Amino acid sequence: MPFVTISDLITHATAALRRAGASTTMACATAEALVHAEASGIPTHGLARLALYCSHLRSGRAQGAAAPRIVHDGAGCCLIDAGGGLAYEALALASTEAVARAQRHGIAFAGVTGSHHAGAMAYHLERVGAAGMVGLAFSNSPAAINAWGGRRPLFGTNPVAAVFPRRDHPALVIDLSLTEVVRGKIMLHAEQGKPIPIGWALDRDGHPTTDAKAALTGSLAAIGGAKGAMLALTVEILCCALTGASFGFENDSFFEPGRPARIGHALIAIDPRALAGREVFMTRIEALVAAMTADDDVRLPGARRHAAQAKARAEGVALSDSLLAQIRQLAA
Amino acid sequence: MPFVTISDLITHATAALRRAGASTTMACATAEALVHAEASGIPTHGLARLALYCSHLRSGRAQGAAAPRIVHDGAGCCLIDAGGGLAYEALALASTEAVARAQRHGIAFAGVTGSHHAGAMAYHLERVGAAGMVGLAFSNSPAAINAWGGRRPLFGTNPVAAVFPRRDHPALVIDLSLTEVVRGKIMLHAEQGKPIPIGWALDRDGHPTTDAKAALTGSLAAIGGAKGAMLALTVEILCCALTGASFGFENDSFFEPGRPARIGHALIAIDPRALAGREVFMTRIEALVAAMTADDDVRLPGARRHAAQAKARAEGVALSDSLLAQIRQLAA
Repeated sequence: MPFVTISDLITHATAALRRAGASTTMACATAEALVHAEASGIPTHGLARLALYCSHLRSGRAQGAAAPRIVHDGAGCCLIDAGGGLAYEALALASTEAVARAQRHGIAFAGVTGSHHAGAMAYHLERVGAAGMVGLAFSNSPAAINAWGGRRPLFGTNPVAAVFPRRDHPALVIDLSLTEVVRGKIMLHAEQGKPIPIGWALDRDGHPTTDAKAALTGSLAAIGGAKGAMLALTVEILCCALTGASFGFENDSFFEPGRPARIGHALIAIDPRALAGREVFMTRIEALVAAMTADDDVRLPGARRHAAQAKARAEGVALSDSLLAQIRQLAA
Repeated sequence: MPFVTISDLITHATAALRRAGASTTMACATAEALVHAEASGIPTHGLARLALYCSHLRSGRAQGAAAPRIVHDGAGCCLIDAGGGLAYEALALASTEAVARAQRHGIAFAGVTGSHHAGAMAYHLERVGAAGMVGLAFSNSPAAINAWGGRRPLFGTNPVAAVFPRRDHPALVIDLSLTEVVRGKIMLHAEQGKPIPIGWALDRDGHPTTDAKAALTGSLAAIGGAKGAMLALTVEILCCALTGASFGFENDSFFEPGRPARIGHALIAIDPRALAGREVFMTRIEALVAAMTADDDVRLPGARRHAAQAKARAEGVALSDSLLAQIRQLAA
């Protein structure tokens, strides 16, 4: 497995996206995010997505010429229209705006409409954490979770991310989706003819199933059943009703032919100085970290990513031969 | 089972809390909240708590003379110190402040420190929804959930609530805790000598257990395992690190003798007018509701509460003889 430096990978990925029709700024923002995910040990949101993004740019499902712009200025809030482009440039603008507005108002909300796949959600909070603020981020996605009691998927897997800065240490980073498992895990069981545990998925009638094939024509189970479905609903409303974006059931799967994406995202930044203060915040966080790490088996959220990033900076990123060949071909 | 009018119940509960040492305003705010929960069909957070609150007021675990006050004004944020009193008066102030600040800043965060049991969390968002705003509410609580991989409970069951106003209809109301089941359900199994399903709880070594008795000396499982534990951690930080309140593991169980409570709460209000606008918001919400209710088996979140409240206003609240006798005795 070849190791490639982060900067070489960004160069290749940027070239590939430019060739597929992305503007220079869109290509750079996207390439940096995908390589960052790859370097963070999150290959599902890394360069494996590059070919898909390029095909969406070519087919017009994502608009390569789009430039994100602020379409409503609401003091501590702002609404950004991604114009149907890839999500990353719009989300970079959202995080910059969230930090600047939270500095003035104590808390800020940057909403994004008309957007595409958000990738690894916590990435968009790095700037918020670096500014010493608490960050929360949400995105909807094509439908995967039923309304509780319902038979068809309405809500996306809907990632929720959070960043909590620490004194003299990397931030705590939380990044999760609201389904019990990822769809890929069920596909693997279906290919191997193996049953899945109850609690992973529902069949097309909305009933719990152990049949992996039946699960693939049904829906993914939310964490905690009704509770996770309610959380997914909450994310849909924060990302779409407040911004005017399209709900999960109004967006087509990214992996099948479909309409241009109109995904919504929401970023919240909170400045500790507007509440109990930076010192209290940092001291309380360290008390919590001490209680957690008093148990040797507890790993701090984000620790695995930070370690992977350090390794990737030192040694480069390990990629499969086939993925590297694909990236080079897209860039050539 | 006798039916009692809402106003009679509020009168009795107020008298009971006054007798136990609560100020008039604390007693009124608390009585209204407990009766509202009872009338909403949430008896676990209703008048069954009255005797406990009175005993906490008598023992000094809750300060009856405390008056909540704003200790830091941070534009779109404010920090309220409940002064060790019961939570409801502080949370009423928090919701008033959140609405007023969101009107000016588009989004607002009201944090509460030095507080007590928050009760049914969505209640504190009624004012936010009535103002046409999106509301989010969080509270921590005494430790019940382990850090992922850990052996002792650090985080509370940590309720998460949300309110989403609708055009010409009652708001959507979400109110959930982050554990798979409530502790009472496990206690019932232990009393009956029945096993519990895997996924409800962990034993004192942090391992999944089907032994209800072992579960009671261990911890509650979070929804989605590691994911729910991360969400509980997020709530702890929003409610305690930003406000200076005490984490779950620093608070004692409400049901056993312990130190004065120092719970934290967080309310967020978001004004749709500061983003895509009120019309877009209301129209999007109705599109979502239409998709959900296209399936006959889907119930809108909050519908059961709204129906129970209407019934209670018309017919009074049904209470067991023993609970009614207890309330009358406390008030006499």
